[in-house]
Amino acid sequence: MPPARKQESSATKRGPAYPKAVDRLISLFADLPGIGRRSAERLAFHFLKNEEKAAADLAAALLDVKRTVRHCEVCWNLSDGPRCDICTSDSRDRKTVLIVEQPRDLIALEQTGMYRGLYHVLMGRLSPLDGIGPEELTVADLLKRLDNHSINPGQTPVGEVILGLNPTLEGDGTALYLSDLCRQRGVKVTRLARGLPTGSQLEYANKAVLADAIEGRQGV
Amino acid sequence: MPPARKQESSATKRGPAYPKAVDRLISLFADLPGIGRRSAERLAFHFLKNEEKAAADLAAALLDVKRTVRHCEVCWNLSDGPRCDICTSDSRDRKTVLIVEQPRDLIALEQTGMYRGLYHVLMGRLSPLDGIGPEELTVADLLKRLDNHSINPGQTPVGEVILGLNPTLEGDGTALYLSDLCRQRGVKVTRLARGLPTGSQLEYANKAVLADAIEGRQGV
Repeated sequence: MPPARKQESSATKRGPAYPKAVDRLISLFADLPGIGRRSAERLAFHFLKNEEKAAADLAAALLDVKRTVRHCEVCWNLSDGPRCDICTSDSRDRKTVLIVEQPRDLIALEQTGMYRGLYHVLMGRLSPLDGIGPEELTVADLLKRLDNHSINPGQTPVGEVILGLNPTLEGDGTALYLSDLCRQRGVKVTRLARGLPTGSQLEYANKAVLADAIEGRQGV
Repeated sequence: MPPARKQESSATKRGPAYPKAVDRLISLFADLPGIGRRSAERLAFHFLKNEEKAAADLAAALLDVKRTVRHCEVCWNLSDGPRCDICTSDSRDRKTVLIVEQPRDLIALEQTGMYRGLYHVLMGRLSPLDGIGPEELTVADLLKRLDNHSINPGQTPVGEVILGLNPTLEGDGTALYLSDLCRQRGVKVTRLARGLPTGSQLEYANKAVLADAIEGRQGV
């Protein structure tokens, strides 16, 4: 019989003997993207060690973000109110709408400071294999903006749609689908230049690459 | 004059244009140990994307951990009640007290399943350069346990103290300080065997190394 101390598995089964509330916090942290068990323990002990304010602040911020942040009724960007800062701004070019998959892509493009038009956030991309069709995205709201001037901010007709989807297979498929719909409506369609390396994710591109992509957009 | 798109710094200054609540959540996440700005954004968007329950659960767990978890009045282990599970357990050897720096060290030792005695958590180590002396630690509570049988669980006199401090310069200094105090009281003092590689942190040692250290403890 091997000595008890070699029985790794039985020792593991005995469990970590943390108080229940600590265990629960650790497993919630460990469920988050990119956080393993060790980091989760480290985070839980960070809050145990620090004063109550640190935990209370994060708890409040978590509740706050779900309570106060919604999607813009026009473009689906993240917003404090019914319409986002970009849709309500007088200084944007309201004839141009750049379509992105998710709010983080919009933020990445905004940080280049190169684009002065409006956006439309699709909230995903077409992915037939995952059962994601146009109905799962905000395509209908986009078409309403194109068809009905009074819906687009400033009641301005949309003259150009820029496709800013990820340069991936699914992004390209979505772009193809949308470009047909836009052209049927007589709207000029362009797409971000392929300064973006195919296969990468837009949200991780650096600003210079994103700026190149905005400047070099091409007719399709 | 360089073109605007090369002015990285001014674009950065413009800020990320997130709603305030999102910004706040991102910076709170980014302040946590081991989490950078990118991971913080990813975490914030995880909660934005998922249903409210995910944020509410983590918020509740954070508040819960600060409300329900306290330190054991005897050994300073984490505890749900006034005394921890180890101090209240009848099946532990109450004549032996293993001194560790922090609750995580205690958990690591418990997971070996090799130790059946009690603990005392110092809540740190002596560190004169950082102004941490015996008063900043739980040394006084340890001495009370040694001097007064009625304080130690089961009113059992402590016969042996095992020093389980980190095998570092500060841990060794603390061990030296404590071993003098214990020997003055006629208590046998041992320390964990140097199966622990000097300079490492106890909380990261694997179970086999920790088990060796418990088994091979040496007189000092």
